[in-house]
Amino acid sequence: MSELKNDRYLRALLKQDVDITPVWMMRQAGRYLPEYKATRAEAGDFMSLCKNAELACEVTLQPLRRFDLDAAILFSDILTIPDAMGLGLYFEAGEGPRFERPITCAADVHKLPHPDPEGELQYVMNAVRTIRKDLDGAVPLIGFSGSPWTLATYMVEGGSSKAFTKIKKMAFAEPQTLHLLLDKIADSVISYLNAQIKAGAQSVMVFDTWGGVLSPRDYKLFSLQYMHKIVDGLIRAYDSRRVPVTLFTKNGGMWLEAIADTGCDAVGLDWTIDIADAKARVGDRVALQGNMDPSMLYAQPERIEKEVQSILAGFGNGSGHVFNLGHGIHLDVPPEHAGVFVEAVHKYSKQYHTK
Amino acid sequence: MSELKNDRYLRALLKQDVDITPVWMMRQAGRYLPEYKATRAEAGDFMSLCKNAELACEVTLQPLRRFDLDAAILFSDILTIPDAMGLGLYFEAGEGPRFERPITCAADVHKLPHPDPEGELQYVMNAVRTIRKDLDGAVPLIGFSGSPWTLATYMVEGGSSKAFTKIKKMAFAEPQTLHLLLDKIADSVISYLNAQIKAGAQSVMVFDTWGGVLSPRDYKLFSLQYMHKIVDGLIRAYDSRRVPVTLFTKNGGMWLEAIADTGCDAVGLDWTIDIADAKARVGDRVALQGNMDPSMLYAQPERIEKEVQSILAGFGNGSGHVFNLGHGIHLDVPPEHAGVFVEAVHKYSKQYHTK
Repeated sequence: MSELKNDRYLRALLKQDVDITPVWMMRQAGRYLPEYKATRAEAGDFMSLCKNAELACEVTLQPLRRFDLDAAILFSDILTIPDAMGLGLYFEAGEGPRFERPITCAADVHKLPHPDPEGELQYVMNAVRTIRKDLDGAVPLIGFSGSPWTLATYMVEGGSSKAFTKIKKMAFAEPQTLHLLLDKIADSVISYLNAQIKAGAQSVMVFDTWGGVLSPRDYKLFSLQYMHKIVDGLIRAYDSRRVPVTLFTKNGGMWLEAIADTGCDAVGLDWTIDIADAKARVGDRVALQGNMDPSMLYAQPERIEKEVQSILAGFGNGSGHVFNLGHGIHLDVPPEHAGVFVEAVHKYSKQYHTK
Repeated sequence: MSELKNDRYLRALLKQDVDITPVWMMRQAGRYLPEYKATRAEAGDFMSLCKNAELACEVTLQPLRRFDLDAAILFSDILTIPDAMGLGLYFEAGEGPRFERPITCAADVHKLPHPDPEGELQYVMNAVRTIRKDLDGAVPLIGFSGSPWTLATYMVEGGSSKAFTKIKKMAFAEPQTLHLLLDKIADSVISYLNAQIKAGAQSVMVFDTWGGVLSPRDYKLFSLQYMHKIVDGLIRAYDSRRVPVTLFTKNGGMWLEAIADTGCDAVGLDWTIDIADAKARVGDRVALQGNMDPSMLYAQPERIEKEVQSILAGFGNGSGHVFNLGHGIHLDVPPEHAGVFVEAVHKYSKQYHTK
């Protein structure tokens, strides 16, 4: 493997000195880029794009050709594991992901297999290997998975949800069934992420998109507990280098201390929390990733720059900050605005890293 | 007007002693009740139900006939003000509320009239007067309005939204236009709520359903500032009695201190915060309303009772707690479960009110 030319992202996650604040964007390979739309059209549907290592690699690298990003993230779907468990993932136009065979009872959970990361999920590992090779050490590659709770919401609801009726019914009426399911998913996520690390991912991130719909007690019980299990089960160093792990719970701002207590290296922040407050609460223990409102990219360049400066000032001096949006980039953002954002982070962060 | 027979709800909001913890449910008059569905079918569409004082009164009183609730809440829509401003409210099946003429620019805002509460909105005041008369002093009547930010999201987006693209574009690119709009709405909300108070509402609540999609700075700037203006402009005592005002921002758990600083009497909590933490943070200044996850009503009676006990214990001894769900009751909840919930609050709260 080539020597890593830019390791700012990995260093910042470990709170090691950096020259400028590293930056990447959640969903940076995506529909706001015309070249992404072209490749996706070539692939056919979304899962075909995910399952083709060459094309998944191509879309992963596209944003890096446009912007001076400090990390690449594997292009894949968060529902690869439930799909590999046999639930029958499909996409309904305008409806988002759906499962043909959702989980309804304990018997369904007992029947779930543990997918083999180099078997049913080998297409993901092939994508990781291809991307890592093509990156040629330019920047680190981030691997990822959905959190057990977040994956379980789709598996039990049968798709996207607003009120999370079915899974909450299960949580309150049949908690042991849900715990069995979450535990199985956690085991599969551990194998999946460890396989990504072995295939070349230099850092991993767990996306808990839906943990924020729970009460504090239920969040700890049904979501955080299983992310903790994942953190404990991950390969934390590989190829003589530490593999940092980032946990991100959308709307989890009130629970940062508990998230940091899992032993993860970094905590992702959405934009509903002031990064200065977050740093005061947990910044001695973990690095922070975030946290500009993705909608700020609709504003004019000057406004975007001002916002970047404000968040940089909020974090203040020293390492331990990976700049990002607080959620995935919106699909109708002008790509040039993303460029302004990335440049602004580099331009205005120098002053916080002089010693 | 008849003497108020049960004033627990009003007393708890003012932190005055009560015998047991008062309870009501957001959206307690609603689709989970078969009798509501029957009345709504009689009325035709939703707005016809809101605009018919007799039928609006009937559905307001329906849950009180089933459950031992400590307050009634005016049955109405949160979008009555923008409708009266001439935006052309209509309901698309499965799509929720829509406006024919959304706000797109400063000129649109300048043209907006201030609706007359006893003119275009007189149907609301008629409903308040009819309900108050029919309640005959059994329990207090709560009046309400949407918050300026929440109303503005519908007015600018043209209906419900997920990403709030248009209003955030306005907030970041043209903040002065949005401030003009929010200020106009706030003035209309003040007249509207004061008219409800004069018509018979004994307490008022402001629902900020969408404040939680903002960053802390933008929440204060675009949502809380205008709720503060409303609190300052409200009639705070009427008919020799204090008229308590409750502010509720969904997903506002991180900003309780700032909400309490407006001078409101009570802060509504959703279920993503532990009520014991909320009390420790602001309970010396305001009463708290909340905060059971509405999905808990899917569980079996024993589980519901246990949850009620847990929240009561979290709040602990003394007055200053109005029990409620953390959001509106779901439409597919068994009505008997709502009954179990209400009874449990009364049954298990006695011990916290002995002196």
